[in-house]
Amino acid sequence: MPNNPLSKGKERFIEQLGERGLIETIVNKFNANANRRIVTVGAGEDDCAVIDVDSASGGRKYLVVTTDTVQESTHLPKGISPFQIGWTAAAVNLSDIAAMGAHPFAFTVAMGVPARTRSAFVEEVVEGIEKCASAYHTAVVGGDVTRSKEVILTGTCLGFADSPVRRAGARVGDLVCVTGSLGNAALAMNLIKRFRDTELKVPVKVEEIAKKALFQPMPRIQEGIALADSVWVTSMIDISDGLALSLAELAKSSGVGFEIYEDKVPVLSEELRSAETFDLSSIGVERRALAFYGGDYELLFTSDASGLKRISKTIKMSVIGKVTPHEAGIYFKKGEEKEKIELIGYQHF
Amino acid sequence: MPNNPLSKGKERFIEQLGERGLIETIVNKFNANANRRIVTVGAGEDDCAVIDVDSASGGRKYLVVTTDTVQESTHLPKGISPFQIGWTAAAVNLSDIAAMGAHPFAFTVAMGVPARTRSAFVEEVVEGIEKCASAYHTAVVGGDVTRSKEVILTGTCLGFADSPVRRAGARVGDLVCVTGSLGNAALAMNLIKRFRDTELKVPVKVEEIAKKALFQPMPRIQEGIALADSVWVTSMIDISDGLALSLAELAKSSGVGFEIYEDKVPVLSEELRSAETFDLSSIGVERRALAFYGGDYELLFTSDASGLKRISKTIKMSVIGKVTPHEAGIYFKKGEEKEKIELIGYQHF
Repeated sequence: MPNNPLSKGKERFIEQLGERGLIETIVNKFNANANRRIVTVGAGEDDCAVIDVDSASGGRKYLVVTTDTVQESTHLPKGISPFQIGWTAAAVNLSDIAAMGAHPFAFTVAMGVPARTRSAFVEEVVEGIEKCASAYHTAVVGGDVTRSKEVILTGTCLGFADSPVRRAGARVGDLVCVTGSLGNAALAMNLIKRFRDTELKVPVKVEEIAKKALFQPMPRIQEGIALADSVWVTSMIDISDGLALSLAELAKSSGVGFEIYEDKVPVLSEELRSAETFDLSSIGVERRALAFYGGDYELLFTSDASGLKRISKTIKMSVIGKVTPHEAGIYFKKGEEKEKIELIGYQHF
Repeated sequence: MPNNPLSKGKERFIEQLGERGLIETIVNKFNANANRRIVTVGAGEDDCAVIDVDSASGGRKYLVVTTDTVQESTHLPKGISPFQIGWTAAAVNLSDIAAMGAHPFAFTVAMGVPARTRSAFVEEVVEGIEKCASAYHTAVVGGDVTRSKEVILTGTCLGFADSPVRRAGARVGDLVCVTGSLGNAALAMNLIKRFRDTELKVPVKVEEIAKKALFQPMPRIQEGIALADSVWVTSMIDISDGLALSLAELAKSSGVGFEIYEDKVPVLSEELRSAETFDLSSIGVERRALAFYGGDYELLFTSDASGLKRISKTIKMSVIGKVTPHEAGIYFKKGEEKEKIELIGYQHF
């Protein structure tokens, strides 16, 4: 298996390379792409990274910070490549920065890896981290490598914003919206599970697109910034543990309820829907389950109705419901039917 | 054992508490002490923490960032309490901030813990993190809790500085100095190891003081700031993996060599030396090994000789050698004898 960090082949293991040798190969990669106007001292160059605040902030008033871990035993889907593990570790953090509508600029990563890990594995993980961070103009400025019982990556991402969008702020009557489409990653999870169990054949294109959404998610940085710049957006969160849980978090923070029109929820990307030559139900997958209980890295936000026309010109988005009083709870509507949304989704414990 | 995270008693485990329940108990503790002038949005309150840059920076030009992991299988000495595990996770990061001479203001922590961990264990770890951070006026602004195979804590610390002190900058002729005293933590490590092997009795006071240095290190934030404020200090690093490795790092970054006067190296604190009613050699411990190859969280720095009188009035420090040309290598001198310093110390792989 290409993504097995422990291999008994003739390859070089990181325990042979030594901690300092390993770090040297990593920091060279990270520092090559750093914007030196912002990053005065980069990864591995001193006790700390040093960042020029004026250049990095562009005069913005707030520093935003988030930290998130991905690890082998619970977070990483089967079949993910080392490059994609690294990409994911950066993407989950960038997605939180997107959810505030902030401009990311710096990322640090602490990697725990077993001693008998192939050094090629670590190099590919590092490549994935670097590629994702630089796709969003973010410098990897620091890190740490330690020996651990399993592969575990903790990222911390820093951004600047003038008016970060909070989870609190949704008002009764606002419209509820999502960027992009939901359920793509969840479809891939289902396909992986079903492939193991059956002889099921799914069009190659469907498989490819779905797996890309699952293994190499694209955080919505530009969309988040555009939404924060709009005066009409009242609250925002990313959808990392499924739409249902994100709705619940937003409702709790804003003290409101939601009415969601199930038919308006954009399930699967256009690409997937046009490629969808097989029947979802034939693999036992419900459309609703994909969108509501699978994690994507889209943004869920609320907005005053008057601003939506302008917003929808800049970013790909759908109106999926409206904000109701807290007492009304969280429901979805399909025609005249009204049903309480089950608050389940991914929890680590 | 009080520090065993996995217990089969009647206690509550975090898997019963659930991820969201666990996070709630943690963030309440972290947010209680946050300085709300600086921390606009604290731990667990949104997708990211939000920090007011002007208030946090005090107008300082540079943001400094560091990240460091401690985990069960490699970093944590036997006998350490959950509180001290948390304290250490914050202290190792604050020590890197100290080594730049920066003012710390924010800390994030990602915790990996096995599902069958007592919730009291996690609460004590959190208490230790919080107490160490607030001892240095640093707010815990964010974090993450995940299930992992062993206890693993990754901290990221942020600080501001006007003139961060680099590892590069030592000039031939500068004096080499350390803050405080070395070898205290290493003595405790030796005592723990010897206690297991023999019936050895050591004065209780010696044991207590040494263990405090090992289990609850005090990063030298105030000293680092004072040294950065002095125009005479030319380079600085913390001593986390022993004096020998820190000298080697400083020599490499600055392109110099060092001549260290072994007798001038302050081995063991005054308290320990006055309490030292037993003979180190009776437990097979060499004075040199304690200072050179054991980790403390003191600062190693170089300075122009003219400024040292003033510096030594503000902080507790010792001159231990002088900067020589790179070709001269790293030696220590004892009387007329000159001996190459072995470059060994703690490496993770």
